[in-house]
Amino acid sequence: MPNKDKIEAKTVQESMVESTDIVHPSDSNSYGFLFGGHLVSLMDKVACTAAFKHSESKVTTVSIDGIHFLRPAPVGTVLTIRASVNRSFNSSMEIGLSVSAWKPGQKSEAICRAYMTFVAIDDQGLPQKVPAIIPETPDQIRRYNNAEIRRKTRLELKEKLL
Amino acid sequence: MPNKDKIEAKTVQESMVESTDIVHPSDSNSYGFLFGGHLVSLMDKVACTAAFKHSESKVTTVSIDGIHFLRPAPVGTVLTIRASVNRSFNSSMEIGLSVSAWKPGQKSEAICRAYMTFVAIDDQGLPQKVPAIIPETPDQIRRYNNAEIRRKTRLELKEKLL
Amino acid sequence: MPNKDKIEAKTVQESMVESTDIVHPSDSNSYGFLFGGHLVSLMDKVACTAAFKHSESKVTTVSIDGIHFLRPAPVGTVLTIRASVNRSFNSSMEIGLSVSAWKPGQKSEAICRAYMTFVAIDDQGLPQKVPAIIPETPDQIRRYNNAEIRRKTRLELKEKLL
Amino acid sequence: MPNKDKIEAKTVQESMVESTDIVHPSDSNSYGFLFGGHLVSLMDKVACTAAFKHSESKVTTVSIDGIHFLRPAPVGTVLTIRASVNRSFNSSMEIGLSVSAWKPGQKSEAICRAYMTFVAIDDQGLPQKVPAIIPETPDQIRRYNNAEIRRKTRLELKEKLL
Amino acid sequence: MPNKDKIEAKTVQESMVESTDIVHPSDSNSYGFLFGGHLVSLMDKVACTAAFKHSESKVTTVSIDGIHFLRPAPVGTVLTIRASVNRSFNSSMEIGLSVSAWKPGQKSEAICRAYMTFVAIDDQGLPQKVPAIIPETPDQIRRYNNAEIRRKTRLELKEKLL
Amino acid sequence: MPNKDKIEAKTVQESMVESTDIVHPSDSNSYGFLFGGHLVSLMDKVACTAAFKHSESKVTTVSIDGIHFLRPAPVGTVLTIRASVNRSFNSSMEIGLSVSAWKPGQKSEAICRAYMTFVAIDDQGLPQKVPAIIPETPDQIRRYNNAEIRRKTRLELKEKLL
Repeated sequence: MPNKDKIEAKTVQESMVESTDIVHPSDSNSYGFLFGGHLVSLMDKVACTAAFKHSESKVTTVSIDGIHFLRPAPVGTVLTIRASVNRSFNSSMEIGLSVSAWKPGQKSEAICRAYMTFVAIDDQGLPQKVPAIIPETPDQIRRYNNAEIRRKTRLELKEKLL
Repeated sequence: MPNKDKIEAKTVQESMVESTDIVHPSDSNSYGFLFGGHLVSLMDKVACTAAFKHSESKVTTVSIDGIHFLRPAPVGTVLTIRASVNRSFNSSMEIGLSVSAWKPGQKSEAICRAYMTFVAIDDQGLPQKVPAIIPETPDQIRRYNNAEIRRKTRLELKEKLL
Repeated sequence: MPNKDKIEAKTVQESMVESTDIVHPSDSNSYGFLFGGHLVSLMDKVACTAAFKHSESKVTTVSIDGIHFLRPAPVGTVLTIRASVNRSFNSSMEIGLSVSAWKPGQKSEAICRAYMTFVAIDDQGLPQKVPAIIPETPDQIRRYNNAEIRRKTRLELKEKLL
Repeated sequence: MPNKDKIEAKTVQESMVESTDIVHPSDSNSYGFLFGGHLVSLMDKVACTAAFKHSESKVTTVSIDGIHFLRPAPVGTVLTIRASVNRSFNSSMEIGLSVSAWKPGQKSEAICRAYMTFVAIDDQGLPQKVPAIIPETPDQIRRYNNAEIRRKTRLELKEKLL
Repeated sequence: MPNKDKIEAKTVQESMVESTDIVHPSDSNSYGFLFGGHLVSLMDKVACTAAFKHSESKVTTVSIDGIHFLRPAPVGTVLTIRASVNRSFNSSMEIGLSVSAWKPGQKSEAICRAYMTFVAIDDQGLPQKVPAIIPETPDQIRRYNNAEIRRKTRLELKEKLL
Repeated sequence: MPNKDKIEAKTVQESMVESTDIVHPSDSNSYGFLFGGHLVSLMDKVACTAAFKHSESKVTTVSIDGIHFLRPAPVGTVLTIRASVNRSFNSSMEIGLSVSAWKPGQKSEAICRAYMTFVAIDDQGLPQKVPAIIPETPDQIRRYNNAEIRRKTRLELKEKLL
């Protein structure tokens, strides 16, 4: 019998996560900028936390789509990573991520955005239904609709590939 | 000539920082719990970001006081680290930190708190005046007053030590 | 004046890269399996090496698409990461990645695949033309054609998003 | 029944620990100096070893007090970390730490000092009595007396805080 | 009773391993070059993989001989690590390693070579017979013969040491 | 003109280094024991410090010989690494290393020994004469003589290899 409490819809706000970090030399690539692979590691943990909050269950990363690196971030940059559930589909959730960077006395700039898909699993590792999402603001509604467009495009792409 | 804009007082709210992380095996000590030294590294970066935001200048960690480890956090725990400027004294800022831990389906618990003192420095490394802080909520006022008590106690302790 | 040698087409074979690693506890997530973010870090370096070999210039990661995590890889797994240039478009290269995992006495299994796009840049950071790719085997030709389908789909998706 | 052997007093000398490390870029902050959080990680392990030696049991870090960062240490610096038990109180031990830094051909300088409190625990995680400490040198006696002053001050501070 | 399948001889080719990595600041020493200790960590994993492939059993590193660091490798260098089984002796295998380094637009240079000895162990940790090696190329035959010379020299050295 | 002070002989005692560490999960291999590559990283830094102290100049690791892993060290083990200059030859120094491991309430056991050769270099990277070593204790004299035997054997081995 499914857990009734768990399948009540939740707002986007309830599971939004924000995290911050400072780029140290240990996080940088050979040009002295934030290493993309390290940024993805940070984003994966933040997205995972949003998925934990929305599903209140164990989750596993299924896929990452459309990571765009917009600008390099030098050592010393302060990163702000924001993750929110754009939409849920049965047992899976599309998490939208945006990363901005700033330094004291400078303006904040977007440096990366990405979409990660997580699936909620139970203790046996089987997929588990997650709550529907309630988008409230115009931005949340836009992201909710775009999540479906991205999903459709991914499925269509599968058909087109040789 | 000092930068006039910089020395206008700011609210606590303006520089509050929240960050999140998940305890992985690479962050754990030999008992399988979050390694205290790793937690301090995470807290140092979050506190530094709050000091960056309040001072809008370079900062350096001067001292850490009263780190209390309240409960162990096992691998898999989601950490939430919160930092805010409790009070500023000329060029230095006392940052208060609290860390809570939770797992999907469990309640959040406080696991650590600490106070870190940062000094704002200019490009020559010389101390630089920072804005006064405006505490607004009862909690912020309590922390503001406690910061002075802690500072006095630290100075008195110095006198008492042999 | 462009470097003539550089813009002569090259085969896929000339820039193929293979790398290996063993999953240690420091690479694992809180369930004891290879952490997805760590795997992306490893893949980014291997893909970057393939882009270095094909372009013989500095490169920068522009985007990552379609990372699919197919199976979890427990601590102790031997990873084999393979990267090759699927197709080049002016100054950009789509690198295809596949990761397989095995343990002594077991069969190798695919655990992840992804596409990363790199742009070749000169010392001023400006995009720089890269050699065309010559696909030779049926698989290389299929990937070459799929790279164009993926690129088109990405551009179409941009139009569709609200 | 308590283990009689364990509660015989021990000298400071018996559990003193010295450790050394070289500051690599991976240990540095965004200004190219030793990252404070990394130094605390190193100190925590050295202090823990002193607590292990004195108590001959499992221990856990309870609190860290008065970490003072006296001077920045650039990449390439050789660190010497010294830890000794200043005093024991029932099941807890105050460990005093001092860190000095030098480079070939230069003089050694103190860069950090701190106090960490560990509690000895048995296999069930319950506090366990530790041996009393026998201070022998004038410095050890001074630290022994200061440990009590610090403990009193901490307890008094608790009362004063709002 | 020994596993008959396992003790059939294998060619060198069957267990050769190649791996690649890019030197990041986190891998560098205080002079900005690849840290020797980090390189040994990378080599240990690649050699271990070759030993896994040859023995198809668990293995453990027994000794490392003759690591020669020939040239420093600056941050940004692409490393290629090659490992192959030079010879097997009952339950042990000598793995030969060579590391070369290059940057886009530069020639590859040898920077390190080493010999590591692994022993195959069963689930109880007991040594387990490994397949004989079949050297095929002149280079493989030379390495096969040299492995015996090195082994003899090591045994003779033991006798000579005071 | 050579620096006269530098070429005065020094005792072994003057440059002996001892370091300690605790094996955390992040330092372990896939069997849950201290990863050999990580141990070599630790030993390299301790040996380098001994070479720094003896030569009072920059040094570079030239070779590592005869690393013997005698026993596995599980997570939680306290490591003690000791390094001392066995002998100097013109601009090079043979450093002898021994590593022991213990846990609270257990006896200390040797787990690894190794020999590392460092060369002192000046700011242009050219080899630089180092002080002769004065062995004082019977053990130091034995190691001093063995260093010469090892050096001779290495040179003879070079001749014997095909």
